[in-house]
Amino acid sequence: MPKLLILSKHAEKYRQLVDSARLPGLREITFDPAPDVDVVFGEPHLIRDALPLLPGLKWAQSTWAGVEPLLDPALRRDYILTNARGVFGGLMSEYVFGYLLLHERKMLQRLEAQRDRRWDATLTGRLNGKTIGLLGVGSIGAELARAAKFFGLTVRGFTRDSEGCEWVDRYFHGPELLDFARGLDYLVSVLPNTSETRKIIGAEVLAALPSSAIFINVGRGSALDEPALIQALDTGALAGAVLDVFEQEPLPASSPLWEAKNLIVTFHTSAPSFPEDIARLFCENYRRYAIGLLPNKIVSFIKGY
Amino acid sequence: MPKLLILSKHAEKYRQLVDSARLPGLREITFDPAPDVDVVFGEPHLIRDALPLLPGLKWAQSTWAGVEPLLDPALRRDYILTNARGVFGGLMSEYVFGYLLLHERKMLQRLEAQRDRRWDATLTGRLNGKTIGLLGVGSIGAELARAAKFFGLTVRGFTRDSEGCEWVDRYFHGPELLDFARGLDYLVSVLPNTSETRKIIGAEVLAALPSSAIFINVGRGSALDEPALIQALDTGALAGAVLDVFEQEPLPASSPLWEAKNLIVTFHTSAPSFPEDIARLFCENYRRYAIGLLPNKIVSFIKGY
Repeated sequence: MPKLLILSKHAEKYRQLVDSARLPGLREITFDPAPDVDVVFGEPHLIRDALPLLPGLKWAQSTWAGVEPLLDPALRRDYILTNARGVFGGLMSEYVFGYLLLHERKMLQRLEAQRDRRWDATLTGRLNGKTIGLLGVGSIGAELARAAKFFGLTVRGFTRDSEGCEWVDRYFHGPELLDFARGLDYLVSVLPNTSETRKIIGAEVLAALPSSAIFINVGRGSALDEPALIQALDTGALAGAVLDVFEQEPLPASSPLWEAKNLIVTFHTSAPSFPEDIARLFCENYRRYAIGLLPNKIVSFIKGY
Repeated sequence: MPKLLILSKHAEKYRQLVDSARLPGLREITFDPAPDVDVVFGEPHLIRDALPLLPGLKWAQSTWAGVEPLLDPALRRDYILTNARGVFGGLMSEYVFGYLLLHERKMLQRLEAQRDRRWDATLTGRLNGKTIGLLGVGSIGAELARAAKFFGLTVRGFTRDSEGCEWVDRYFHGPELLDFARGLDYLVSVLPNTSETRKIIGAEVLAALPSSAIFINVGRGSALDEPALIQALDTGALAGAVLDVFEQEPLPASSPLWEAKNLIVTFHTSAPSFPEDIARLFCENYRRYAIGLLPNKIVSFIKGY
C-alpha cells in the first residue's frame, strides 16, 4: 500500500488529478517528506532536497524531462528514477516550427509593414524543401523529425550511435559533427546536459553552418558556447538564433544575450509541463508499479537520460 | 505541334523552366498573343485581356488558384481552363499554423519581455487539443485539415455538400453554419469568391464563435463582412484575426483594417506562386495535353473553381 509524496509548485493540482484517477492501493497522499514514503512525484530539485528524509523511497517520478539535480554522483541512487520524456515532443514541435515559420514567413517584417500601412507583397521563404539537423534524436528529436518530414524537410540526425528513427534521412556520429552541420538551413539542439555535450555547439560548428542558417536550442544551455554564438550572430556568420535554455537560468539581466543581434530569447518555456499531461503519465506508471512491473521512462544514472 | 503563349510577370523565368523541361512537340514559345496560339500559361487577368487575340486557344493554364477574371459570364468559354490548385496547400498550412503558433505561443509578448530583459516563464497555449473549423474543404482545405490532425486538433469542415476529406472529423452544410462556428478555437476561411460565399462570414457567424477564438482568412476577401469583423474585434467578442485577403486589394491606406484591434494584416502572400512549383504543374499538364488527354485541375465555369 504505497504512500505518495507530491513535491511540486503544482502540488495541489497534481493531488486533485491523482485523486480523480482513483489509483489502486494508494494508501495516502502527502506534501510532507516522511520515512514511510514509498513513491515521490515532483520537480527534480525538490526531490533532491527531500532525498535524506525519504529512507523508504523506492520510486521517484520527475515532472520534467531533465533530471540533472538528481544525477549528482554524491547523491544516493538506490531507487528507480523515471522522467517525463515523451510528453514534450509535440510541444517542442510547436515551438521549433512556430519560430522557424516566424523567420521564414517574415512575420515581424510583415508587422512592420502593417504599422506603416504598406502593402508588402514581397516573396517570403518556406519550410518545404529545407534541411534541418537535429543534435540528439531521443523521443523529442524523433518528434521534431516527424514534424520536419510533415513539412517536407530533409532531416539529418546527430547521435552518439543510435539510428532508430524512421523520420531521419541521414545519421551522423562523433567525428562527423562538422559534416553534419555543413549545408544545414536549421540546426536544432535537443541535447541533454552531460559531460559529452558540454559546449559541443561552439565556434567550429557555428562556422560550418551556412551564413543563412538558423540555430535553435531547446535542449540544455550547457551544450552551447554562448560567446561563440554572439560572435557568429554579430559578424553575420549566422542569420539568427532562438534560445530557450541557457548556461544560467533565469538569464541574468546583465547577459549580452538579451540584446544580441538576430537572437530571440524565450524562458525555458518551449515545452511546459502541463499538469494534465504529467499526471496522466504518472498514473499510467503507477498502475505498472502497483502490480509489480517496472515503471516506464526509467533514467539511467550513468547516461544521465 | 502546339504554340505556347506565356503571360506572366515571371514570363522569362517560366520560359526558362518550360524550356528546360523539353516538352514533346512544343512548336514555339512566345510572349505575344497571336491567332495561332493553342495554349496560354499565365496570370488570369493577363489571359483575360488577351482572349480576343487568341481565336485558336484550346487550353489556358492559370498560374494562380483563383481565376475570377476569367469567370465573367460575358467572356468566352470555348476553351479548357485549368488552375494551379493543389500546389498551395502546403504553403497555406505553413501560413495558417505559423500564425496560430504566433498566437498560442505568445511570441509577440515574449519578444516584449526580451526587450524588457524580463524572464517571463508564464504558461503559453498550444495547438494540441484545440478545434479548428475550415470554411471550404477543397484541395487547400484538405491540406489544412491534414496539418491540423498532425498537430492534434479536432477538425470541422463546412462545405456545400462534399464530405470526401479523411482528415475532417465532422462535416456541416448550408443551414448548419452557426452550429459549425459554435465552440471553435480557430475559424479559417479558404472560400473562393462566388455568389454563394459573399459576406458569408458576417456578424452572425462571428457572434457564434467563442470570444477566445481566432479567425484567419486565406480564401477571398469577399467572403468576409469587414466592418462586422472590426466590430467583433473592437468589442472583444473575438480574440484576434489574421487577414491575408481583402474586399479591395491592395488594401487602401485609408482602411480601418490596418489598425483594427488584435488584427494582423498580410498582403495576399499566404501561398505565393513559386515559379518552380507552377511550371512543374504546367509541364505535367502539358504532357497529358500533348497525348490527347484532358489536363488536370480543370475549372468549372459554372461553379467557379
